[in-house]
Order: sequence, then structure tokens, then C-alpha cells
Amino acid sequence: MSENKTEIKLDTPEDLSLQLIEAQYGLKDTRGKKNAKSVVILVSGIELAGKGEAVKQLREWVDPRYLKVKADPPNLIEPTTPFWQPYAKFIPAEGQMIVLFGNWYSDLLNTALHVSKPFDDTMFDAYLEQMQAFEQDLKNNHVDVVKVWFDLSWKSLQKRLDKMDESEQRWHKLHGLDWRNKKQYDNVQRLRQRFTNDWLVVDCEDEANRDQMFAQHILKHLKHLPNHPVKVRSKWQQAIIPDALLRPDETALEKDEYKAELKKLTKKVANALRVEGRQTIIVFEGMDAAGKGGAIKRIVKKLDPREYGIYNISAPEKYELARPYLWRFWTKLLDEETISIFDRSWYGRVLVERVEGFASDVEWKRAYDEINRFEKDLSDTQTVVVKFWLAISKDEQEQRFKAREETPHKRFKITEEDWRNRGRWDDYLNAAADMLQRTSTDYAPWHVIATNDKYSARIQILKALLKQLKAD
Amino acid sequence: MSENKTEIKLDTPEDLSLQLIEAQYGLKDTRGKKNAKSVVILVSGIELAGKGEAVKQLREWVDPRYLKVKADPPNLIEPTTPFWQPYAKFIPAEGQMIVLFGNWYSDLLNTALHVSKPFDDTMFDAYLEQMQAFEQDLKNNHVDVVKVWFDLSWKSLQKRLDKMDESEQRWHKLHGLDWRNKKQYDNVQRLRQRFTNDWLVVDCEDEANRDQMFAQHILKHLKHLPNHPVKVRSKWQQAIIPDALLRPDETALEKDEYKAELKKLTKKVANALRVEGRQTIIVFEGMDAAGKGGAIKRIVKKLDPREYGIYNISAPEKYELARPYLWRFWTKLLDEETISIFDRSWYGRVLVERVEGFASDVEWKRAYDEINRFEKDLSDTQTVVVKFWLAISKDEQEQRFKAREETPHKRFKITEEDWRNRGRWDDYLNAAADMLQRTSTDYAPWHVIATNDKYSARIQILKALLKQLKAD
Repeated sequence: MSENKTEIKLDTPEDLSLQLIEAQYGLKDTRGKKNAKSVVILVSGIELAGKGEAVKQLREWVDPRYLKVKADPPNLIEPTTPFWQPYAKFIPAEGQMIVLFGNWYSDLLNTALHVSKPFDDTMFDAYLEQMQAFEQDLKNNHVDVVKVWFDLSWKSLQKRLDKMDESEQRWHKLHGLDWRNKKQYDNVQRLRQRFTNDWLVVDCEDEANRDQMFAQHILKHLKHLPNHPVKVRSKWQQAIIPDALLRPDETALEKDEYKAELKKLTKKVANALRVEGRQTIIVFEGMDAAGKGGAIKRIVKKLDPREYGIYNISAPEKYELARPYLWRFWTKLLDEETISIFDRSWYGRVLVERVEGFASDVEWKRAYDEINRFEKDLSDTQTVVVKFWLAISKDEQEQRFKAREETPHKRFKITEEDWRNRGRWDDYLNAAADMLQRTSTDYAPWHVIATNDKYSARIQILKALLKQLKAD
Repeated sequence: MSENKTEIKLDTPEDLSLQLIEAQYGLKDTRGKKNAKSVVILVSGIELAGKGEAVKQLREWVDPRYLKVKADPPNLIEPTTPFWQPYAKFIPAEGQMIVLFGNWYSDLLNTALHVSKPFDDTMFDAYLEQMQAFEQDLKNNHVDVVKVWFDLSWKSLQKRLDKMDESEQRWHKLHGLDWRNKKQYDNVQRLRQRFTNDWLVVDCEDEANRDQMFAQHILKHLKHLPNHPVKVRSKWQQAIIPDALLRPDETALEKDEYKAELKKLTKKVANALRVEGRQTIIVFEGMDAAGKGGAIKRIVKKLDPREYGIYNISAPEKYELARPYLWRFWTKLLDEETISIFDRSWYGRVLVERVEGFASDVEWKRAYDEINRFEKDLSDTQTVVVKFWLAISKDEQEQRFKAREETPHKRFKITEEDWRNRGRWDDYLNAAADMLQRTSTDYAPWHVIATNDKYSARIQILKALLKQLKAD
């Protein structure tokens, strides 16, 4: 009995298989096109209900080359890791489809029921809200999410357990939960009711029906993939360009004073960065030649090269373009360094991609919220996010460009593209103004640094970094 | 005192830094060009000699954004893992440079000296030979390898250990080896002499000199990156096309007999694939429409979808093209499945890339040996490599193409490109003939399967797979 009452007629297996394969190739064929989609199938449910069998049957009916399957034992949700992190790398590219047996909901149930640290309903619901927001972001970014709960009554579950031999039973117990425990079973049912209202719930008493129900549900989804949103609903209110961007302050610093301050600050910053169990992400954005490289050099001065990683973000590759915009950042956070410095970042979406038209209106306008949620997830999991906008005046940039062209070892640092970007100075200022207004949050504030004077800029950056690290 | 006597004049730090940055940008600028290069710097040596400090100094002198640093505690070389596997993902893309503190040599020393399972010199030298062959493959594929040994005398090492406090000393002991043990120190020195003749050996008694020596050595390498080989030395002897490719045998199988055999064989294959601690890689190559998809479907029939992964290999992406050809396969082997099925594979180098001219003469002619070494490394680490060439006649292919075009749910399976490839039928046959002759080894033999009759083809494939799995 399904809670999603849908009219499903049963086809012959051959017919169903043909339809599934056709739908699969249809999905595959959307790759690189305007209506491109990928599909994530989340599979959860009561032990022994038969999710494994249903997926096996599905993979027999379809072309197995184009249906990936991932299964890991459920994780506990860790306070230092966003719930989506273990799954980010499996988010499929356009045209692809994946079944995730282990998924954020199985982790959540597992964590909620774990005896040593159970959560209460408020915390459970807070996670659910985050998960639904994440799924909405996936859908907006062309990844459709289909959710299926395989259900089984307490009585049938016990009967199926009775039929197993002891070693198998032990294995099932190892799998996180004790399915002989009625109280726990009831708890699973109570908790899953809090989230399965938009799931297909398959009643698994009848095995033949179960596999058809599941496959028909997937087929229906593949046949009616939702359209991408193309219109922005609300009116756009361009932010006023703040004075700090228009007229970066130019208080110069003497070299001697700079050197003395630098020595002191680089040591303090290195110590402040080394906090057990905490990650730090430092983001640099700004006009070309504003001094990102120089600032980074000073931040890492007293660090061991093994303590930090630097990411230079340029145009995305094809395989990255085939996934949600933030995907390449979700997956970079899997690396081991505790200090990650981004020379340009996910803000490319609302800067270069907006200005150059690489992202559509609806895409970049939506990105502010996506980015805020992303940074909130990081900040909630013991990561400090420090963001710098390096503000330079148009005249100073011109002088630096010219100096670069005239200095042999700096000539490599200046390209045609830099001059081209300069031509869109005002567009970039507008984009920066919107970005600062919409993504400066209390958990991840922007620091706007005037960089016409390099010495004072570097000192300001170190001081701001130190202050935010200490406040955390 | 260096064993590589090179004339190195000491520059001022400022001057050295400028030269390094210029050389770095020069390297970066080769990206996507004919002379593109990347550089891997392997750093090993005696504990406390100062490799960490020297790398820190180097990263201060260069632009740190374009010098990655990776350090992991040394691994033990496992019998189930090729020595290059932990490092494959760090092989840099064109224009990039990385320092590997942990590397295959530190793993080798660590494994050789590990008390519970020390290895003898013959085994040590066998590994050295494999490592040097791997590095030669890297170099041929535009990844330059620079190796630096940081040396320190027994006396100085003991003095430096004396100066440390106890907790630090314990940490150093934890790091794999006991540096208070003279016998072990002597062993390290004896063993490293077996491989450091093409390394820069830096004497680390004098710290200032050490950092300059190291940086100057890197600079010299960056300034004189070797040219890629462009000519093939030996004369090419095209293989004769075997009869099995020209006239695939057509003994047809009745449907009833097929169904009965299939049922038996799919079960046997599933059981034979499930051997604890063993990995299986199954490769499918062949002309379009030869039946790769159908064969894969039958192999996985009795497997749980969680037991296997299927890789559909198509044209490489930009980030893959920026690395050695086999890199995308080295890194795929990191996945967890114990059964990996490749629908097309690394043989693309000597098939489509040869025929279409995507690989140069020197590249595809070299690839046979590279592939053989790669498969030998897999086979040496408890992986069975099973390879199928599906042979179809030109007429049968035409019929299948036409049938696909006429069947709605198969229309997606046929593209313009398939017809274009068909136009180069003879070129592909020649390429296949060379491939079969040059890469059919006793550790990874090819099975040529006639596929004009689909039923008999599938049965032959299952039988051949079963036989090879059992022989292993």
C-alpha cells in the first residue's frame, strides 16, 4: 500500500524493460543540452524489505552501463562534516543516473537511533530542513531527486529474520540497528513518518509487486522530468556600490613599520590557524592585480607547507559544467588540509559568470542563497570561512598592469584577458556590490580591503583574519 | 658534499626567487602546448636533515599558488596495491608542479626496514626496477621527475636528536623508523645507495647551503626541461590480421540450449568472481554493435548491484588530456568495487586514438609497453585482468546498425559517429591485430570472441571468463 497514491498499471517485464531502456537513453541524450538532467535515486527502508532485490531487478531491466549503484554502510553524521559531504562525489553528471543505498536519510536515522548519542526531534527536524534545502538546490541545478522507502510490517520483518541463519542475522545487526528490538522498529517508523510524505512508499509484503512498483516509479520520473526554472520571480534590486569599492582608502605604510608589523602578525596568524579540530577556509576575490598572490604569500609565511593547500580557481571543466555549480567546491572540501586558501572561488558564479553571461539570470540570482546555505553548512561543521574582497582603484590597476608588462619576470602575470576584464570595470563593481550585500552573513562576513597601498593592505588582511579567527 | 657534482653558483635570495618565479610561470605557460610539461619533485632522506625546512624555503621563494605540496606518513607497500596507486591522484596536470614528501621510495624504505616483514635485496631491487620503469613512463608522458635525497651523518643526526625534547623524539620514532638505532641508520644508507645515483644528494650539515642547493637544483630543472621524444626508433612491423577477426566463426546456438547454458553459467561466474581479497577487471573492446552491452548484462546477471561497477570509457576530458594517458585509469582503480567492468578501456590509445590520429605515432607505438607494464602491476597485486575482443563481420554490423535505426527504443544507440567509424573498418582491423599481438600476455591474455551469433557469443564469453578465473 503506497502513501503516494499513483495509478500504476503493471506491464509485462519485457515491455517495462523496453520502456525503461528508452527512457534511459532519452536521459543520456540530454547531455550538454538546455534540458539536461541527471537523476539521483535515494533508497531507504526497513531491513529485509527487499530494497537490494528491487534495485537488482531494476538494473536487470535497464541497460546496467547507465545506472550506477552506490552502497556504503550508513555513516554517523559527524559534527565536523556537512551531511552531504560523503555523497557529493557521487552526484551524477548530466545524462546519468545513480542509486544511493547509503544516503543522507539513512545516516540521519542511524545517527538519531544510535544509542550513545541519540538526537531529539528538534535536531532531527533541523537536519530534515537542511536536507530538503539541499535537494531543492540539486533540483534547481538539474539533478532530479527520487526517493523511495521500502516498508515492511513488524510481523513480516520478524518472520523474515526467523528464516535466516544465525550468521546472517548477526550481519544484519551489525548493519547499524537491531531489528529484533520492537521499540527501535517503532522509532524508525515514527521518525521516517516525519520525512517520507514526498517519497514513494513501497509496501514490501508482496515481492513481485514491489519490484514493479519501484521500476514503474522510476520510469514515470524519467518520462516526466521537470522543466528547469527559466524566470526569476522577484524584481531585482541592484545594490548601491559602496564607497569602499569606489574610492579605496590609500593610507600608506612605511616599509620599516610594515616589516615590523608583518613579522609579529604572521606568527600570530600561524598560531591562530592551528586549532585542533577546526578547519579554516580563506577566500580571495577582487579585481586583477589587486594583490591576491602577495596576500596569500604573507598568510602562509610561518606555516609549514604541509599544513595548507591553495586552490586556484579558473573556468570549470566540462565534467564540472555537467554538475551543479557548487559541486566542484563540495568535492574539493574532501581534501585533507585543515587550511584551504582559495584564489578566486565559488563567487565566480555571481562575478565573472554573471558579467560575462556564462550563467543565466535565474542561475546567478539564485546563487546568492545557494552560497549562503553552503557557507552555513560549513560554518555549522566547525569551519571558519574568511572572505576578502581586495579593492583597488582603476588608476592603480592600470599602473600595475603596465608595470607587469615592463618587468620580465612579471610579464607572465598579465594577459589579454586581464585587459578585457578591465573594460568591464563598472559591471564588475556592480556585481561585487550585490555580492557583498547579499552574502555578508554573520557566520561568513566579507572583509573589504583597500589595496592601493600593498603594505597596508597586507597588514589589514592579517589583522582581519586574526580577528575573525579569535572571535570564533 | 653532493654526489651529483654540479657547478652551482649561489645567488642572492632575491635573485634566486625572481628566477624561480619566472621559471614557474614559464612552466605554467606550457599548458596545452606541444612542449607542455609538469614536474614531480620527490623528496626523501634522513630524519631531521631538514627536508621540511628546504621545501618551506622553496615555497617562500616561488609563487606558492603554483607549487603544491603533499605529505603523508609513509605507507607500507601492500601486496594488493601497486606502489604508484596512493600517489596516482597527485600526478600534476601540465604546467603544474608538486612536491611529494611521501613517495614510492619512502614507502619502499619503510617497507624494507619494517621489522615484522623485512624484504631481501632481490625484492628491493625488483621494486626499484618497477619504479624506474614507472618514472620513465611518466617522463615519456610529459611529467618530469626530480629526486632529491637529504642526507645527514650519523653523528649529526644523534646531535640533533639530543637537542629535541622527549615528546618530539617520540614523534620521530612514530614516523616509521627508530633513528637512535645505528644498525638501522646504516641499513637506510646501504639501501638508498642502491637507488640514489640519479638523485641530487644534499649534504645537510650546513642549513643555508642546503636550501640553496635544493632550490638551485629545481631551478636548473625548470630551465632545462627535456624535450619530448618525437621519433620512433625501431621500424614498425604491422601484424597480420588473424582469421578470427576477418571471418568470425558463425556456429549458431538454439535459443533453448542458450537459455539452459546461460542459467548455469551466470551462477558459476558469479561464484567464481567472489574470491576474498581478489579484484577482477573485465575489459570489453570491439567494433560498434558487436554486443558489448549484452555481454556485460549477462556477466552481472547473478551479481548484486553493489558488487560491481561499470565504466563507460569515452573521449578523455581536458583535465585528463593534461596528464599521462593511463592516468585516468590509474585513478579509477581507487574505487571500492571488487569487480570492475570496462566498456572500452585504455586500449583506446592503440585503437581509436591511433586510427583517428589523436595520438602521435610515437605515443601509440610506445603505449603497448606502457599498457603491458600497467597490467603486469595489476596482475602482481592480486587483480585478474580479463580482456575480450568482440569480433563481428562487416555485413553483420551493417544489419545491426540498420535494425537499430528501425527500432524506436534502439535508435538512441546509433549515431553518425558509428557510421563514420565503420568507414575505417580496415584501419581498425589493423589496429586490433597489432593490439592482440603485442598485448596478449600470459598474465592478461586476450579472448577473441566471434559475435555474429549473439547467443553463442555470450556463452563463449562466460566460459572464457570462468576458465580464466579458475586458472588464477
